[in-house]
Order: sequence, then C-alpha cells, then structure tokens
Amino acid sequence: MKIAIVGLGLIGGSLAKAIKKNTEHSVYALDIDRETITAALSQEVIDGEITASELSRFDMVILGLYPEPTVKFCLDNIQSFKKGGVVIDTCGIKSAIVSQVEKPLKDADVRFVGCHPMAGREFSGFGYSIDNLFERASFIITPTDDTAMSAVREVSQFAYDIGFAKVVMASPEEHDRVIAFTSQLAHIVSSAYVKSPSLFDQAGFSAGSFRDLTRVAKLNEDMWTSLFMLNRQPLIDEISCIIDRLDEYRTALEAQDSARLHELLKQGRILKEKSNESLK
Amino acid sequence: MKIAIVGLGLIGGSLAKAIKKNTEHSVYALDIDRETITAALSQEVIDGEITASELSRFDMVILGLYPEPTVKFCLDNIQSFKKGGVVIDTCGIKSAIVSQVEKPLKDADVRFVGCHPMAGREFSGFGYSIDNLFERASFIITPTDDTAMSAVREVSQFAYDIGFAKVVMASPEEHDRVIAFTSQLAHIVSSAYVKSPSLFDQAGFSAGSFRDLTRVAKLNEDMWTSLFMLNRQPLIDEISCIIDRLDEYRTALEAQDSARLHELLKQGRILKEKSNESLK
Repeated sequence: MKIAIVGLGLIGGSLAKAIKKNTEHSVYALDIDRETITAALSQEVIDGEITASELSRFDMVILGLYPEPTVKFCLDNIQSFKKGGVVIDTCGIKSAIVSQVEKPLKDADVRFVGCHPMAGREFSGFGYSIDNLFERASFIITPTDDTAMSAVREVSQFAYDIGFAKVVMASPEEHDRVIAFTSQLAHIVSSAYVKSPSLFDQAGFSAGSFRDLTRVAKLNEDMWTSLFMLNRQPLIDEISCIIDRLDEYRTALEAQDSARLHELLKQGRILKEKSNESLK
Repeated sequence: MKIAIVGLGLIGGSLAKAIKKNTEHSVYALDIDRETITAALSQEVIDGEITASELSRFDMVILGLYPEPTVKFCLDNIQSFKKGGVVIDTCGIKSAIVSQVEKPLKDADVRFVGCHPMAGREFSGFGYSIDNLFERASFIITPTDDTAMSAVREVSQFAYDIGFAKVVMASPEEHDRVIAFTSQLAHIVSSAYVKSPSLFDQAGFSAGSFRDLTRVAKLNEDMWTSLFMLNRQPLIDEISCIIDRLDEYRTALEAQDSARLHELLKQGRILKEKSNESLK
C-alpha cells in the first residue's frame, strides 16, 4: 500500500516510524517544516516528499494535523485525493472533524474514516516521535452512517499491523463525551492543580500523589485549546461534575461531619476498584 | 540502640524491616493483632514482642498508629517511656499530634519529636510492608520550641541510617499547610474524579492521564478521614482554591473565549515547568 502522511509531528512522525518498522508499505510525507522533511528523509522514516497535488497516487492519506488545519486541508484538497482511496485524521476530538469532512469527501468518492490514535507524550514535534508510541495504545475509529465499512475494515487491520494493542469503535459523539472525561478533564484538573499558592513551598514534601496529579499540566496549550474549544459542552459537563463532587468533600469538612467524609471517600475507593476491574 | 515499634502496619512494619536491613539496632514490637506479631517474629523482622509496661527499656519508641490512637497511646503510657528516651510518631498530620503530646511528654522527661515518613502504598497492613519503602522518600521532622535539639539530631541521623533520601525540617503548621496541597488534595481530587457518570463508559478510551489522575482514589478511608478531619482548614482552603481555578476554565469555555483558555493553560504549563525546576 502507498501511504501519504500530511504533517510529521509527534503523531504523524510516530505513525511513519511504526509503519516502517512493522509493514512493507511505502510512506511519503508532506510537512510545512523543511527541517522535519530533511530529518525524516535522512533517517529513512519516509520514502520521499510529496506535494498536495500528488495525493491521488496514494491508497491511504493520514492527516497528522491539528483540528482546524485537518478540516481545511480536507476541504481545500477534496479533488486531489484518490477516488476510492482512504483518508483518515488523527485528531483528539471527532464530531467537529467528522461532521465537516466526511460527507464532502464521500461525495468526491473518497472513503473518510475518523480516527483517534490514543497516545501522546509531554513533548511535541517530529524530534520526539518514536516507533513504539502506540504499543499499548487504543486506536479509536468513529464510523457514521456515511462511513464505508470496507474502509473501517482496512483501517482497523492497518492499526493492528502497525502495533496498536486494541481497535475500538464508537460514534463521534460517544467518543467526544468519553474523551472529555478520560483525557480532557485530566488535563484541566492537572492544570488547575498547580495554581495553588502552596506550589513553591513543597521542597521535600512532594509525594507520588502530587507528581501523578500534576504530570499532564505540562501540556501544549495550542493543541489543547483547540481540542477543548471543539468539545466544549461535554468538557463543561465534566468540569461541573468534578466541581460539584469536590464541593461535597469541602462541605463535609466544614460541617466537621466525619461520617459523611468517610462515606464520600469510601464511595470513591469502591468506584475506583470497580473501574479497575471493568478495565481488566 | 534498642527500638520499640508500637503498631506494625504498613509504616511500622516497613520501618522495622528497614531498621533490620540497614542497622544493628534491636527491634521489639507491640501490636493488637496476634497474626501480625507471629508473622513479624517468624520473618525475623522483630527480635521479640513486648507489652506497653516494658517501654522503659527502650531508647527510641516509634508509634506506627493512626492519629487518634497515637495521642491516646502517648498520654495513657506517659509514665512508661524511658526517662530521657526518644518517642516519635509517624502521622501524616502534625499540629494535632504535636500540640497534644509533646508538652506532657516533655514534663515526664521524654523527648518527643513529631515525624512524618513520607511514603505509602495503595495497600495497608504488615503484609504489604517492605524494607525499601523509604528509599526515595523524605523524612519530615517538625520541631517546636519544646523539642529537644539532641533528639532532632538523633532522629535525623536515624532516618538517614535506615535509608531515607532526605530529612526535612518544618514547623507542624507549615507541614500541615503544605501536606494539604501535595498529598491530601491529591487524594480528594482523585476520589472526586472517579465519580463522573462517564466512569464505566471508557473501555478502550483510558489514557495514561486518566490512570494518573485516579490512582490514589483507591485509598484507606479510615486513615484518610482521620487525617483530613485533623487538618480541616488547610485542606478546605486548597479545595476552595482548585474549585475556583477549575471554574475559570469552565467560564472560558462557556464564553467561547479561546484566548482566555489558552492563557489559563499556558499559566499552568509554565507553573508546572517552574515547579519541576525548583524540585530538581
């Protein structure tokens, strides 16, 4: 299969490396950064550079771009993709992408599949891309009534071939609602956590729990602002939920109600244990 | 040195094992659970069992008990400790302990030092105790005007001898204020996090960020209720702080103000980076 990757950042670059490591597919790429292309060529991560006008030669086009550029690139180049070919995106939100590009691409005889390779690092860019980023990761596919089942099968097989541990199906809306909880809320909470006036008083007091709670506060604010803005309502709902829950602990403390506090902690402990069980 | 440990739970048991591994001190113990004593004896973690009436034979008594039992045991046995000997506690809050026991013990010619070995696991009890629990941990000492400097020096040397990475001094109040942020708030937030209705919809969507944010929700509610209730105001202040910060992100999302959201995320990222730097 001939694969084109548009955007060789952390995800696009890691996908290119994973394809090269695990398959015989050829990989060509397009990136606005000349140094990235030079590095990818010299490391033999890609077989060559292409322009958008050459996309019709490729069986699969992978978009490794932020959300807005993903939509723009699809719509701007709608006649350049191979008829009958597959186009996938890699954005962390899905409704805002799928709803804008799937139908126009279908009308142009291009089989689009909304995808989210669930992996990341605390660093951005091709320089941090690695060939095993996806080894224990889920590859989420968000088909709709407009999605070609043949393309879902091909993309699913492709994801397993390049090393993903699991392929998961969900509607775009279901994906966005769950991702607001499992990933987006974690980044918001972590970012809020470090804003206590106590942050710089803690030398020697820093426990593992603090490190865990604040690790993802070190985020790429450009990308996450875009992801959050395109998934506003599910994320607002999750933030409201955790604020309300936090307020319950505060209220119990203010009322000196240790029985209530004990019950709140016990509920959380049991939920965590059940959730660990259900994820086994 | 002859050391007595009162309460061979996770901390008391791990201290006993660390002492045996790293020093020539003899270790005797007292525990209300017969199986624990039997196990500790058969594993040669302790040299023998004692009763409270024998405490006067020991140069150092380590209390591995929850907060309320720590205070009760000290006051109930105030005349049993060796005159001139050292008594330390191991509770995760300090003001409530130190303010109640240090002066009475001093009046009985016993040198008390409030201590907090900053380590833990997601499991409780002697069965989970390990001899290297403290290898990268801080040992916090909270001296007051009533604390004997000689005891602070002895306890500090003892902590280094049994493998702690660092000994840190703070007043009991300073300890409680910082611990409310670095440890207690982390447990409250983690406990609140898992209470979203989305918790059980996430099979395949669970990212590393979710696992990090929720790890410590699996807590011992008996111990943490006690620790939280004895540190109410600093913890209430930290919960209020993170609720207010979370509300800022929510407000930006509701207002569709991406510039403001970007700024909030950037502030968090910079604070996290600076805090990483300051902890190096």
